[in-house]
Parts: sequence; C-alpha cells; structure tokens
Amino acid sequence: MNYEFLTQGQFSAVYNMMSLTIAAMLGSFIFFVVARNLVGEKYRFSLIISSLVVGIAGYHYFRIFESWNDAFILEDGKYIPSGQPFNDAYRYVDWMITVPLLMVELVTVLALPREKSSSLLTRLTIAAFLMIILGYPGEISESTELFSERGLWGTLSTIPFVYILYVLWVELGKAIDNQSERLKTLVRNIRLLTLATWGFYPIAYMAPYFNLSGAGAEVFLQIGYSVADILAKCGYGLMIYAIAKEKTLQDNLLTQGNLATA
Amino acid sequence: MNYEFLTQGQFSAVYNMMSLTIAAMLGSFIFFVVARNLVGEKYRFSLIISSLVVGIAGYHYFRIFESWNDAFILEDGKYIPSGQPFNDAYRYVDWMITVPLLMVELVTVLALPREKSSSLLTRLTIAAFLMIILGYPGEISESTELFSERGLWGTLSTIPFVYILYVLWVELGKAIDNQSERLKTLVRNIRLLTLATWGFYPIAYMAPYFNLSGAGAEVFLQIGYSVADILAKCGYGLMIYAIAKEKTLQDNLLTQGNLATA
Repeated sequence: MNYEFLTQGQFSAVYNMMSLTIAAMLGSFIFFVVARNLVGEKYRFSLIISSLVVGIAGYHYFRIFESWNDAFILEDGKYIPSGQPFNDAYRYVDWMITVPLLMVELVTVLALPREKSSSLLTRLTIAAFLMIILGYPGEISESTELFSERGLWGTLSTIPFVYILYVLWVELGKAIDNQSERLKTLVRNIRLLTLATWGFYPIAYMAPYFNLSGAGAEVFLQIGYSVADILAKCGYGLMIYAIAKEKTLQDNLLTQGNLATA
Repeated sequence: MNYEFLTQGQFSAVYNMMSLTIAAMLGSFIFFVVARNLVGEKYRFSLIISSLVVGIAGYHYFRIFESWNDAFILEDGKYIPSGQPFNDAYRYVDWMITVPLLMVELVTVLALPREKSSSLLTRLTIAAFLMIILGYPGEISESTELFSERGLWGTLSTIPFVYILYVLWVELGKAIDNQSERLKTLVRNIRLLTLATWGFYPIAYMAPYFNLSGAGAEVFLQIGYSVADILAKCGYGLMIYAIAKEKTLQDNLLTQGNLATA
C-alpha cells in the first residue's frame, strides 16, 4: 500500500460501505429466492440466476470486508497497515463468475426463441468472461505507464466489452422488436444501467494513470466499487424482476384473450 | 466514549437486549417467509419485503452485537473500553435500506390502483431515505449546542419525516376510504405504531442536548433503539400481515358473492 495510514473516518467509510453491500446482497438474495414464485414459471430460472449472483457476491464481500479489517490496526487514533495485504483479488474472482451470469439473467428472462437465445447466451457469457480475465494481468501489474502491461491488458479487455455493448444494443434490440412498449423501455433501462455501472470499472482501472493513489484514492475506489456492485447486481436483478413481472402480465392477458375468443 | 466503565449489569443489559433483538428478527424472518402462502397472491410481495427488512436488520444487529462485545474488556468486575470503537453507524446503514422498505410494505399491501400506488411508493421511499441520510451528519458531529451541525441536520431530517406523516395521514386516509371498517382500523393502528416508534429516534438524537451522556445514557439509548427496532420492524411486519389477511378475506367474500349472484 502506498500510504502510511487511514484516518478513522476513511477506514470506517469503507468498512461501513462494505457492510452495507453485504446487507444489500443478503436482502436481494432473500428477495430473488422468495419472489420467484410471483412471476410466471418460464421466468423463474432468471430469478434463480439473480439469486446466485447476489449470493456469490455477498460471500465475496464478506471476505473482502474481513480482509479490509485484517489489513489495518488501530494505533493512536489512526489505522495503519498491519502488514496483512488487503486482498482485492476477491473482486476479480467474483466478477469471473457473476458477470457472465448477469448476461444469463438478461437473455433468459426475455424468453426468446430457443436458437436465438442459445446463440446470444454463448456469445455474451464468453465475452463477459474474457473481459474480466483479460483485465486481471493489467490490474495486478504495478506499472503506471500508458504503453505498459496495464495498458495492453486493459485494451484487450475492452474488446469484449465493446462487443457486449454491440450485441445488447443492436442484436438484442432487434430480437425484442415485437414486444410491448413497456417491455422495450425496461430493456432500454437495463442496458443503460449496464453501461453506467460497468463503465465505472474501466475508470477505476485507469486511476493509476491519473496519479490517483494514496489513502483518499483507495477510499474512493473501494466505495465506488461497492456502489457499482450494488447497482450492477441488486439493482440489475430488480430490473430483471420487473421484466419478468411485465412478461408474466402479458402472458396472462394473452391467455385470457385466447379463452375469451375461444 | 465519554465514560470510564460499564458495570456488569449495564454491559449485560445491552448485550442481552441485542441478543433478544437478533432472536426477534430471526423469528420474524422465518414467520414472514413461511406465512406468505397464507395470504392471497397479491399480498405476498409485501410479506417478502417484510422478510427482507427483518433479515437485513438481523444481520446488522449481529454486527452491532459483535462490535459491542469487542468494544469492552472485563477487568476487575468492570467493563472498560477496549479501544476498539463501538460502531453505531450500522444502525444508519440499516435504516438507509430498511426504512424505505417499510414504506414499500405498507403501500403494496393496500393493493391500490397502479398509478396511485407508484406515486405513493416513489414519494414515500425517497422521503424515508432523505430522512435517514440527512440525520447522519448531525449524529456523528460531536457538538451539543442547539444551533450547531446536530441541530441543523436534525431539522433538515425532520422535514421529510413530517412529509411522510402528512402522506400517511391525509393522502393514505383518502386512498382507503372505500375499504372495510376493520381495514381502516388496522391502517390507523399501523400509522400510530409508525409515529410512536419512529418518534423515539429523534428523541434519542436529541439526548446530547439534555446532557444525557455517560454510561447510563448509553445503556438507555442502546436498549431504546433495540426496542424501537423490534416494534418498528417485527411488530410493523405483523400488522402488515394482519392487513394482508383481512384483505384476503374480503377478496374471498367478494369472489363468493360474485359466484352466488352469477
């Protein structure tokens, strides 16, 4: 760590934010597990995946929280590094599993025709996995120069990210062309949420380029990651739930219509 | 901490009260999860939210309990501060999530028309969130003067509180005008419970103004918060359950009536 100490306020801000994240993941986990019966049967798989994502993320945040606590010792009112490294790799391990699953949530809740669905699933999950894996070697490199390992791996990782955005905006847009207006709006919103939250990670990744280091930057990054993860997992899952609810409603209207005309 | 030690009785009173609170949250969690199938389908969402609230609060009370234990060491029959700060911020983190959710429980269980419902939901949850967030800067300020940070933020935080009371008493009153007498009574009761329990928090907040400090005041506050949280979350959730039950009954009577006249 490239700083000598954290103030009590800095340490606690991260500590409390991580605890909030654990609580948010736990709460969302309960919600997705229990509320899956409120949507039609074919949308329950997505809600189960949502519950996996926040369950796994909750576990990792518990680990990150413990690691944060072990990495500092309170001395004379300051939190100084204890010598135990703060293990941030949990985040990458988490993303490796959860980010592809976020793509699964989105594709499966749309209940597209089987072939379209499995083609999208395959491509989006592989791209999401590559995006995370390719970022990692750069993240752990110490270099701060643009044309260095960090820059190289960061650029490589951006390729699948751009591909995902392309698929979500262009291909998925076409695939839901015949759905209700409200559903289109919901899908547009979840796409924007994806862009906004996933967009935070490359910014954090580039922090060393702007000489953002030291205690203040660390606190900013940790809080930023936590907020981004809450939005990208709990918030995203709630939007998946809203889509599942809307599609259930449409299905019911259709069935009633068919019964009425039969 | 502005006191030198807690007696064994003082320490244990808080310790036992917090453990009781964890047990109450856990018990309520199980109840809301399992009993949701005893009410009509459209009221289950509220019971799920009730289970989230007590689940999240249970997690936080577990943390507060651990923090309380770590903050004191038993020496010569007295509990003296260990140097580890007692982290009370968990309460605010908890309220930030759970207090808006309490508003969601109440609005959704009434099954009002969609537009009325989403307007109430938006305004009440935002007001509840603001109420908590605005109180925090005052809570952590050390000042004890009336015209100080504590007074300023406390006053700001009161504005959304008053707004919530207005919405609950005036708007919600109108919205349920055509419901059964028993339901109106239940809603009146839950409103009073809200006022009585939420009313405790500003009183605790103002404790420093009355020179309430020291070990006795700390014990009083911690026990007070725990009792208020049990009533405002478990008790409140049980009243939501009663409303859901009553509405289920009314719905069934209506269906039977329709069948009889058909």
